[in-house]
Amino acid sequence: MSLLKTPNNSIVLIGAGNVATQLGMALQAKGFLIMQIYSRTLHSAQELGNKLHTDYTNDIQQLYRNADVYIFSIKDSALPEVLKKMPSVDGLLLHTAGSLPLDIFKESHSFRYGVLYPLQTFSKNRKISFDSIPFFTEANSPEDENLLEKIALTLSNQVISLSSEKRKQLHLAAVFACNFSNHMYTSAAKILEKQDLPWEVLLPLIQETAEKVKELHPKDAQTGPAVRYDRSIINEHLEMLSDNPDQQELYRQISQSIYRTKNHD
Amino acid sequence: MSLLKTPNNSIVLIGAGNVATQLGMALQAKGFLIMQIYSRTLHSAQELGNKLHTDYTNDIQQLYRNADVYIFSIKDSALPEVLKKMPSVDGLLLHTAGSLPLDIFKESHSFRYGVLYPLQTFSKNRKISFDSIPFFTEANSPEDENLLEKIALTLSNQVISLSSEKRKQLHLAAVFACNFSNHMYTSAAKILEKQDLPWEVLLPLIQETAEKVKELHPKDAQTGPAVRYDRSIINEHLEMLSDNPDQQELYRQISQSIYRTKNHD
Repeated sequence: MSLLKTPNNSIVLIGAGNVATQLGMALQAKGFLIMQIYSRTLHSAQELGNKLHTDYTNDIQQLYRNADVYIFSIKDSALPEVLKKMPSVDGLLLHTAGSLPLDIFKESHSFRYGVLYPLQTFSKNRKISFDSIPFFTEANSPEDENLLEKIALTLSNQVISLSSEKRKQLHLAAVFACNFSNHMYTSAAKILEKQDLPWEVLLPLIQETAEKVKELHPKDAQTGPAVRYDRSIINEHLEMLSDNPDQQELYRQISQSIYRTKNHD
Repeated sequence: MSLLKTPNNSIVLIGAGNVATQLGMALQAKGFLIMQIYSRTLHSAQELGNKLHTDYTNDIQQLYRNADVYIFSIKDSALPEVLKKMPSVDGLLLHTAGSLPLDIFKESHSFRYGVLYPLQTFSKNRKISFDSIPFFTEANSPEDENLLEKIALTLSNQVISLSSEKRKQLHLAAVFACNFSNHMYTSAAKILEKQDLPWEVLLPLIQETAEKVKELHPKDAQTGPAVRYDRSIINEHLEMLSDNPDQQELYRQISQSIYRTKNHD
C-alpha cells in the first residue's frame, strides 16, 4: 500500500508553533492533506491555517473526527490537558516531543498512538530541508509503527525506531548539542559587543567548528587553552571575566570539564 | 606597490603546526615564496618543508636572514624564548596569536614587528578557505601596518586593524564560540554513546544550530527547556545526569546562565 495513492493521508495538526508549522508545510509539500489546524490561540491557528490554506479552530470540540492522523506539536505541559479534552477519534495520534513518553497517550480516549520525533531545531520563519533530519518513531502497535515509518520516510531518509527511554536521552543530548552550544555563541557575542566589535566576525569560526565534526569526533576536534591546559591563558581569561561572575563561572566549569574529558574518559 | 609583483614577498615560517601549515599553503597558493620552515622538532619541520617543497631546519641559528617576513605560529609560551635566540634580521616579524600582545616582540632584536591573527580553528589535514576568515592586524609602524594589511588582503576580504587589548577579548570570545561549543558536542556525543546510539545523528542539528545564527542573533535563536524555564524537563535531565556529576553541574550552570541571559541582560 502506498500511503500517498490512497485517500488515507489526511492530517489534523494540533499546535501552530515552530514544529507544527515546519512539519505542516513539509507534509503538505509531500502530498498529505492538512485538514485542519487547532491552537488554543485563535490568532495562531488562523496564521498557520492561512499559510497552509486550510481550516482552523481554537475550539477543541470542533476538531474534525475523520482524519487519519492527528499530530500534536504543543508544549509538553499542555499535552495531557488537550488529550483529555479532545473528542474520541479513530485516527492515529502522534506527538513530536523528545521528552514525553509514548504512555502519555493513556490520558486520551484513543487506542492508536505513537511518537514522531524530528531531531532538529525549528524556527517559524526559517525553511528547513527535512531530507537529512533523523526521525525517531515509536507506536503502540506494529501496524501503526509501520504506518508511522512510512509517513516519516516520505519526509526523511533517516527513520529510526526508538523507545521512550532512549528518546529522552536523545533529547538531553540535543540540549547540549543545540541549546547549550547556541548559548556559547551568545556568551561570545556578549564579550565582543562589550568591546564594540561586531559579533558577526565569529560566524566563519562558528561554521567551521560545526563543519569540522562531520569529519572528526568532537573529542578529537577539541582545541584551545583548556584542552592544552594552558594555565596562563586560562587565568588571564578568568581575570578578564571578573566583571561577569556568571560567565566567569561558566568558563571555569567548562574548561575543567574539557580537561577532564581529555584525561579521564 | 603591488606586493606580488616585486621580489619583496619572501617568507620564513617559524612553527609547523596547524596554523603554520594552513597559512603556509594559503600564502604559497597566492604567490608568496615560502623560503624556509623552522620547527624545534626536525620531523615537523621536514614534514611541512616537504609539503611546501621548501627548505627546513630545526636549528634557529640556520634561519635565513634575508626574508621579507617571518611568521611565528608556535605555542604562546615558546615564543619569547625563540625570539631571544633568533638571529637579528631586517624583515617584518609577525605572530598569529590571539592572546599575545604586540609588545612580546620587545624580546627580539628586531625593530619591525606586527600581528596577523586569523579568527579561525585550524586542523593540519583539513583545508580551509581563507577568503571569508576575518584577519586582525596590528604593527608597530604605520608603514608595516600598511604592508601587513596588503598581505592579509591577498588571503581574505575581511581585514581589521585591532589593538592587542581588543584582540585578547576576541580570543576569549573565540574560546566560547569554538572550543566551548565543541565541548557541548562532545558532551552530547557521550550521552548518546552510553545508549549505544550513533552520535552522528546529531550532525544535522549541529549544522542547523550554526546556520541559524547567520540570520538571527544567537540570543534570539535560543530554544530549549532552559530559556522557557521548563522546570520539569530541567529536573528530569539533572536526574538523568546523576551518574556524571561533571555533566550534571555543566547542565545546571549553563541552564541558569541561559535563563539569566534572557531575563536580566
